[in-house]
Amino acid sequence: MSNIRHALNVKREDDFAQWYQEVISAADMAEESGVRGCMVIKPWGYGIWERIQRLMDDRIKAAGVQNCYFPLFIPLANFTREAEHVEGFAKEMAVVTHHRLIADGKGGLVPDPAAKLEEPLVVRPTSETIIGDAMARWVQSWRDLPLLTNQWANVVRWEMRTRMFLRTSEFLWQEGHTAHENREDALVETKRALEMYRACLEDDLAIPVIAGEKPENERFPGAVETWSVEAMMQDGKALQAGTSHYLGTNFAHAAGIQFQDREGGQQYCHTTSWGTSTRMIGGLIMTHGDDDGLRVPPRLAPQQVVILPMLRDKPEDAALIEYCEKLRKGLASQVALGEKIRVLLDKKPGKAAAKRWDWVRKGAPVIIEVGSRDMEAGNITRIRRDRLWNEDGKPNFQNRGFDECIDNMGAMLEEMQHKLFGEALERRNANIHRGVSSVAELAEFYASNGKYPGWVEVQWSKPTGEALDKVVEHLKELKLTFRNVPIDAEPADGSCIFTGQPATERILVARAY
Amino acid sequence: MSNIRHALNVKREDDFAQWYQEVISAADMAEESGVRGCMVIKPWGYGIWERIQRLMDDRIKAAGVQNCYFPLFIPLANFTREAEHVEGFAKEMAVVTHHRLIADGKGGLVPDPAAKLEEPLVVRPTSETIIGDAMARWVQSWRDLPLLTNQWANVVRWEMRTRMFLRTSEFLWQEGHTAHENREDALVETKRALEMYRACLEDDLAIPVIAGEKPENERFPGAVETWSVEAMMQDGKALQAGTSHYLGTNFAHAAGIQFQDREGGQQYCHTTSWGTSTRMIGGLIMTHGDDDGLRVPPRLAPQQVVILPMLRDKPEDAALIEYCEKLRKGLASQVALGEKIRVLLDKKPGKAAAKRWDWVRKGAPVIIEVGSRDMEAGNITRIRRDRLWNEDGKPNFQNRGFDECIDNMGAMLEEMQHKLFGEALERRNANIHRGVSSVAELAEFYASNGKYPGWVEVQWSKPTGEALDKVVEHLKELKLTFRNVPIDAEPADGSCIFTGQPATERILVARAY
Repeated sequence: MSNIRHALNVKREDDFAQWYQEVISAADMAEESGVRGCMVIKPWGYGIWERIQRLMDDRIKAAGVQNCYFPLFIPLANFTREAEHVEGFAKEMAVVTHHRLIADGKGGLVPDPAAKLEEPLVVRPTSETIIGDAMARWVQSWRDLPLLTNQWANVVRWEMRTRMFLRTSEFLWQEGHTAHENREDALVETKRALEMYRACLEDDLAIPVIAGEKPENERFPGAVETWSVEAMMQDGKALQAGTSHYLGTNFAHAAGIQFQDREGGQQYCHTTSWGTSTRMIGGLIMTHGDDDGLRVPPRLAPQQVVILPMLRDKPEDAALIEYCEKLRKGLASQVALGEKIRVLLDKKPGKAAAKRWDWVRKGAPVIIEVGSRDMEAGNITRIRRDRLWNEDGKPNFQNRGFDECIDNMGAMLEEMQHKLFGEALERRNANIHRGVSSVAELAEFYASNGKYPGWVEVQWSKPTGEALDKVVEHLKELKLTFRNVPIDAEPADGSCIFTGQPATERILVARAY
Repeated sequence: MSNIRHALNVKREDDFAQWYQEVISAADMAEESGVRGCMVIKPWGYGIWERIQRLMDDRIKAAGVQNCYFPLFIPLANFTREAEHVEGFAKEMAVVTHHRLIADGKGGLVPDPAAKLEEPLVVRPTSETIIGDAMARWVQSWRDLPLLTNQWANVVRWEMRTRMFLRTSEFLWQEGHTAHENREDALVETKRALEMYRACLEDDLAIPVIAGEKPENERFPGAVETWSVEAMMQDGKALQAGTSHYLGTNFAHAAGIQFQDREGGQQYCHTTSWGTSTRMIGGLIMTHGDDDGLRVPPRLAPQQVVILPMLRDKPEDAALIEYCEKLRKGLASQVALGEKIRVLLDKKPGKAAAKRWDWVRKGAPVIIEVGSRDMEAGNITRIRRDRLWNEDGKPNFQNRGFDECIDNMGAMLEEMQHKLFGEALERRNANIHRGVSSVAELAEFYASNGKYPGWVEVQWSKPTGEALDKVVEHLKELKLTFRNVPIDAEPADGSCIFTGQPATERILVARAY
């Protein structure tokens, strides 16, 4: 038994769902807004999102994709013309029906019956159809292709059961939409986006992912192929962290995206779309959080180092603040992970210990405390968020020289970034199980492997249509889903555990968010 | 008469409104979306917005303001509780009444009557009320103050008559919201934001502005003081480019934003809000555009230098591209205005002259053409967008050495930035008229000073209430509005042109967007 008194009230092993909510609150990342299904993203949570945005946007631009902005509202007619797409999204969407409010005569306001829209507008759940309209205007000839666009935007999908960052009615995301001359080019782009997501998640968020193709039943409505990156949370569940779709010519037919090809003929474009969202922040919490709160990988941390002067509300404070300001400047001139180190000197009023634990819960990678004795000795006291406790159950305060602290910081932050990734990778790999050779064994595995059983990679024969539906239904009874067919999986060499036929590939099965 | 054949079909002096639309289209900045009142912002327009965002966001963060994200939807009740605020915004808003669509049985979709919201949701026209709710949760003690927040978001105000960038139903903006212990602190923040806007507009967008306080009738609903920065367009009209409001305790009372003060008493916060939007891009066009299209100030240009190799679809192209790539690298390693120079090597298929004029219309600050003869001589051909024509009516192609071009670019871009600002400032100053001493003279001035008469600074006694309403009504008949009382105006020394009483200050009168 550990004798550590952790900073959160709930431990991961006791109640993972409750622990998740507590991290969000204790790290001051987000909160319920009072508007059904919508959250308020607070500065620390939004700061992490801004870091994700900037790092991913650099990758998006480097690939020659250009950012645009498309309307929030989509005419109803756009949804009716693409039957397959509607099927997937029609159920729960926010519908604008009026454009004016008037007094109800009782001190309140009501939608003005005289201002009813002729055609209701849907708040975008995703923008394929409206961007398809634009592409139809923009693409005339093969010379206009590829057309590579992206937008950072808010979208709304009415959700009955919400969970912060993971499933909210409104969320923030980026959606890439591209048009190409042919299938080959579109598939290259689909895979490029997928690989970009893998790199963002692994290199920036330090979340190991498995990239692969989704089975037919998990495809985006209207897509020919859907690919995903899947991450394993600490409770062994899967989180789909990003998707990339090859849409064939389906959306091009619906929106009329045609071009004159190199031989002078008219053709429909092959399109793709790909997206990631604030959901990744949920994945970040469930990958790197511990019983003391969040741990933010240094590359993403809005503040990588927080300096806390132990102020006493006395005249001597001035010298201490000066010392800390010198430390801040010294650190801010150093480089970690290719960028200047982000340092905050936190002079807010409050007790030193309380402020320390606030920053521990927020997961700032390094906290530096400086008291007057440290200053006199030319030292600082450092806490690494990834090595918070000594074996004796006491916080691991590291006393270091002023210059040494500055000189080592870049390397230390880089080491922490890699360590967080390595830790998550090791856990993930240890929790993917192979060798299950029947559905009965699969059921038995999940029945007998405790709370957090992880994933199982099984061999299958890739059934389609009704045969697949049956398999999916069966998995559903076990609370399991297909995740994806990993790009890097070994070739199949056995029988399908569902059909008994010779297996054609390996697919991941897991409980999922 | 100039013998120049300009790149646009409409000249500013012939039809300014038509010219404005043509610049937007010719510079490929934005277009109608097909959704009423909503535009699509295309890559070049959005790239300019991204530059504005990044530069302003740096200033926002430097002031200690933290970005957050608040819900798109606002419950109806939030609008009814603040009577004065409702009065200003209640008229035209998008109202969400349903959360599901169902098939209508005729191949279409309709809002599902079974999924009618109990309380309709309003798509945010601005976020004072929803952020006020959050502040009421976040602020307990004076130690939590000041609370400095900002969000970058889309907002919707249903507009009957729209004009791209200037007035659209959906637009992009930032809204700062802050809470303070007392009036003094809130007023300091109100002015800080105003000064920040002045700096952004003048230093980044190269648009000279006049900062001042709005008269009572132009205040934001619920505000105690409203301040603005006003810019003069080339047609002499005024554009309000940003506003900053001191809200007193009005919103704090409505939302219950209270804190325990230093003496232990309960008090209401003094709050501020301040905003700028994509409207600034409209101001950019009407300040710097000319009869050849847009001219983007170098600090804002997504690409500051565009290199066009004169390709001939022959094997020799490879050497030319290599030469241009070397030029691109050389330029990209240089610094202008504190940042690495942004250079595009445009290898897209297309005729060289057509591509040149596309970039002229987009307003890239510098266009460099390189043909094989240039290459052989170790030269390049440069076009400065701000000195496009020679006096003989021919384009001003400047032949320069390869190294010279690289070495001079930083200084040249800085000079262009200042020149664009200086040009606009001179024009603005030449078109503010003083010495009008009666309303009759004011009417006469606007009747007799041609199409683009500019602004008039008049002395007034700052009437309030009904007396002010009468003056405003009178001005309205002349199609005039009050802009603001400039901070830097001379003290009053005469009589109010409206009331005849001794004037207390000077105020700007203008036609406005």
